[in-house]
Amino acid sequence: MTQKKNYVVGVDLGATTIKTGIVDNKGKILDQMVVDTKASKGPRAVLGQISFSLKEMFARRSMSGCLGVGIGAPGVVSIKDGTVLYPPNFADWEEVELAKTIRKAFPLPVFIENDANCAAIAEAHFGAGADYRDFLFVIWGTGVGGGIIIDKKIYRGPFGGAGEVGHVSIDYNGPQCNCGNRGCIESFIGQRYLSQRTRQILESEAKNGIVSKIERLVEGNLSRIEPSIISQAAEEGDRIAQEILTEAGELLGYALASAMNVLDLRVVIVGGGISAAPRFVFEAIERSIRSRILKPHRGGVRVRRAALGNGAGIIGAASLVIF
Amino acid sequence: MTQKKNYVVGVDLGATTIKTGIVDNKGKILDQMVVDTKASKGPRAVLGQISFSLKEMFARRSMSGCLGVGIGAPGVVSIKDGTVLYPPNFADWEEVELAKTIRKAFPLPVFIENDANCAAIAEAHFGAGADYRDFLFVIWGTGVGGGIIIDKKIYRGPFGGAGEVGHVSIDYNGPQCNCGNRGCIESFIGQRYLSQRTRQILESEAKNGIVSKIERLVEGNLSRIEPSIISQAAEEGDRIAQEILTEAGELLGYALASAMNVLDLRVVIVGGGISAAPRFVFEAIERSIRSRILKPHRGGVRVRRAALGNGAGIIGAASLVIF
Repeated sequence: MTQKKNYVVGVDLGATTIKTGIVDNKGKILDQMVVDTKASKGPRAVLGQISFSLKEMFARRSMSGCLGVGIGAPGVVSIKDGTVLYPPNFADWEEVELAKTIRKAFPLPVFIENDANCAAIAEAHFGAGADYRDFLFVIWGTGVGGGIIIDKKIYRGPFGGAGEVGHVSIDYNGPQCNCGNRGCIESFIGQRYLSQRTRQILESEAKNGIVSKIERLVEGNLSRIEPSIISQAAEEGDRIAQEILTEAGELLGYALASAMNVLDLRVVIVGGGISAAPRFVFEAIERSIRSRILKPHRGGVRVRRAALGNGAGIIGAASLVIF
Repeated sequence: MTQKKNYVVGVDLGATTIKTGIVDNKGKILDQMVVDTKASKGPRAVLGQISFSLKEMFARRSMSGCLGVGIGAPGVVSIKDGTVLYPPNFADWEEVELAKTIRKAFPLPVFIENDANCAAIAEAHFGAGADYRDFLFVIWGTGVGGGIIIDKKIYRGPFGGAGEVGHVSIDYNGPQCNCGNRGCIESFIGQRYLSQRTRQILESEAKNGIVSKIERLVEGNLSRIEPSIISQAAEEGDRIAQEILTEAGELLGYALASAMNVLDLRVVIVGGGISAAPRFVFEAIERSIRSRILKPHRGGVRVRRAALGNGAGIIGAASLVIF
């Protein structure tokens, strides 16, 4: 008697935690677990943590029902070779044959993909992109990244590196970006820059005797400012926080308009930490794109909030097996 | 007895002239002719000129040997419907069913495509792109346009409008572009802007008693300045002309770096009027891209001059039938 294969496993490999989940073919997470990545201990330790998670999952549910394992990984992922190169914040990790190693330990099909692409695929099938065949997925958090969905499939580009919307420059004389370019949108609205700009504004407003809710939320310790705090203050009606996020949304719109002109896309789905931000931020992005994109595209411009939140990583990884 | 079908016809529909050619399957033009477009007389007159050219071609060579007709057209081209919308500088032309009309008059397969995409396809198969599977094609002339070649095929985007690299903005506070955006690369280096900037520089240098070769070439009439003149002066060693074109190449490189980061491309082929420019312009573009693109891409960056010149239109249109 053969058992029907009715689930897949998705592994969301992050620099801090590894999230592993049992996912059905509707993209629903049926069971999940989280372990430390042990990224500072080197690739062998990380591979051990992935194997541990998979064993635990297969202890809970028979491996014979599993269609395969999908892994979303940071860094440069080679789909063809199943390797992961230079994931940021992973010690001693140059090039690791991740898919091959997992395949050796578990007799199952194993697929890997860049984590931003995984989240884009998840949104395309089970999230805010379900109604769209083509869209640009943007992750706005620590940095700004993305993925391109064309005809419901990810566009990887010839080297697997497509979708780097964070490194569209909006000002060739602008601030120095970590990547070496100037004026990349990431260098304007990535977490560090946005927090720093907020501190500057608060210090300047303080001279006029104006105190923002942001300062209360961080109990006066401005080094604790981060986008989620700015979002919270904005949600509570704080004017300064609202202005900062509106401006950031407008700048993001400028970068996206350029990318969308090249790609011929109209729809943007925004995920990452900022996807918890108030609605007016998404409206600012949409307004900004519409004011800058080529005229025939304007009517179709839509900016949507990502729908899958934290689960996107697991669901996206699982989608690699399903689709 | 059936005759072997051994040639195709390519039609390069421009606002001024219609170029029609007999092309073999190696992309070689065996015979060609040019007629006035009569664009100011409306779509019926233009269609008449295309039909006239095709009849003339089939009088010279039996239609039974023709595999099909490819047409490259300006404006927005719908591959699916075979229509051409709003080609610039064509009177009374809104939406015209070009492919259908030609198919009615000639019992042959008829394909149409945007003219920039046609030139990109021609370069991909028979020109400077023959050795590359993936590249960005840029037309730098009156405006700045382009086409995206992925895996030897054109990437059209969901609405057929992909490749608009001229409307990548390099400065969100930059000069107003015709398209409504600010700081588009076209608004820095398109023919009109480049000529205008050259006039300003010459007027300012004249105050210092410096006379450029450009002024001699236009016999003192600065309104006659155009990119081909600047190129010629640069070729003859004129310092001012060289500086203007070097700066323009650098700015183009900034825009291309952003587009190439999103598309994951490394190779650029530059055509249009500027493809006759001296080599240092192409070197400036390449240097600029390399200084700005994401680090893992830098080693592979190549900027090449388009190889097919004026024939690209006919050959590209013919390629629609061949590939």
